[in-house]
Amino acid sequence: MPETENAVHVFDTAVELTAIDAGRYIGNTHPAYANMVGPFGGVTAATMLQAVRLHPEVLGAPLSLTVNFAAAIAYGEFEVVARPVRTNRSSQHWVIELAQDGAVTTTATAVFGNRKDTWGATELGKPSAPPANEVVASPFPDFVAWGRNYEMRFVEGPIPGADASPHPDSTSTLWVRDEPARPLDFTSLTALCDVFYPRAFLRRGHALPAGTVTLTIYFHADAAEIEAQSDQPILATARSNRFGKNYFDQTAHLWGSGDTLLATAHQLVYFKA
Amino acid sequence: MPETENAVHVFDTAVELTAIDAGRYIGNTHPAYANMVGPFGGVTAATMLQAVRLHPEVLGAPLSLTVNFAAAIAYGEFEVVARPVRTNRSSQHWVIELAQDGAVTTTATAVFGNRKDTWGATELGKPSAPPANEVVASPFPDFVAWGRNYEMRFVEGPIPGADASPHPDSTSTLWVRDEPARPLDFTSLTALCDVFYPRAFLRRGHALPAGTVTLTIYFHADAAEIEAQSDQPILATARSNRFGKNYFDQTAHLWGSGDTLLATAHQLVYFKA
Repeated sequence: MPETENAVHVFDTAVELTAIDAGRYIGNTHPAYANMVGPFGGVTAATMLQAVRLHPEVLGAPLSLTVNFAAAIAYGEFEVVARPVRTNRSSQHWVIELAQDGAVTTTATAVFGNRKDTWGATELGKPSAPPANEVVASPFPDFVAWGRNYEMRFVEGPIPGADASPHPDSTSTLWVRDEPARPLDFTSLTALCDVFYPRAFLRRGHALPAGTVTLTIYFHADAAEIEAQSDQPILATARSNRFGKNYFDQTAHLWGSGDTLLATAHQLVYFKA
Repeated sequence: MPETENAVHVFDTAVELTAIDAGRYIGNTHPAYANMVGPFGGVTAATMLQAVRLHPEVLGAPLSLTVNFAAAIAYGEFEVVARPVRTNRSSQHWVIELAQDGAVTTTATAVFGNRKDTWGATELGKPSAPPANEVVASPFPDFVAWGRNYEMRFVEGPIPGADASPHPDSTSTLWVRDEPARPLDFTSLTALCDVFYPRAFLRRGHALPAGTVTLTIYFHADAAEIEAQSDQPILATARSNRFGKNYFDQTAHLWGSGDTLLATAHQLVYFKA
């Protein structure tokens, strides 16, 4: 039974938006999801999606989301505006902006829609991993608040320790879920897509300045698959293709129970090294 | 020597924009890049990027681009508006919209910026392939105009013929360049990122209704690497992770000469089957 059944999960408080007009909301950063500078990008991305999910004109479920992190978000209040740019018969296109004091810090676009049964196949292979309960949960560094809201059990590529060396491969694979456990929905899945520490840390063997510039998520799971996942741990894996000249990319795959590929996510990350 | 040295390449005509105001342009679809319904998505994506590249306030080179295909574009005139939402010290965020008769058909966001030398590594492996001149060029189906502007030499996963069967793997790998040959730039690389026929055709063994919903490109190459590539063929490979309920994803890698990973590109595609 989910621990959250009788209480509001801190994630729901963090992504809470108050509508002040159709498609216009006020939100607040939450200290529990603070990152080094500003809030955890995953919660910001989830907030952008939430602005669409709460809109009275929303059509169906999320299919894709792109979030661009244009500037740091200061701790405190922000405004989100979600605008349905085009509504088709079975899909809907959105433009979303988050601003503080009238200055845009974050832009996003999203596609929502209704899906019908078609031929289907999952071509990608799920990484092999022992069951979640056989993998040790490792704590996130103390000074990164948001990490305390996730239970992470690293199968490979854990966060480099003080004595770590450069690593030839950027892959991390981990079992991950909200902490305390919380039934999955599209909003929490969005945040989980950004749960990986920067791949350059693993390659270089130490932390360095890094921040996501743009994040794109494709939601493969429909509402029934999201609900079936409930609060079970997700097998999440991420790696990079190329690092250089201040930027690297990251591709992530999030696997649910029953070999369900819930989402694939891609991002471009700024770094200094 | 490029064949285009003394003539304007049809690609340049297709992505031509006339500025009518700062960040506001008029363009026209070009019959040479017509697809089944409306223009080739790669040329539309390239046009969105071009609107930023032509803007007087542009900072540096493209880092990322996301284009959302919200509605079909009718053949004829269109308007593009590119707006710099946020300019930082070394990066700049853009929102771009393409409209016809006041209705938005296409939205996009882009990140541009200046890069500095850092540690770098290409972790992804280049697919093995014989040299381009040892692979037979195959024609695109006659009724798809845009294909005639690209020379495609398929190493694996060619376009299914009339007698094709379902295929267990969605990977296509091909040598590709503009036809006639044209020195690469960021705009033509953008179009090349969308040059793959729909992966569901390969899996199912036949054509079916399909269209890109959203496309994201990460530009790994800087201006010097783009220039060094000139008009040599690019080794391009694409595959899907999951197909189902009207949508599938596609991840593509575009390799230049000297094992340079020029760009990675991701898209979500609508299909019926």
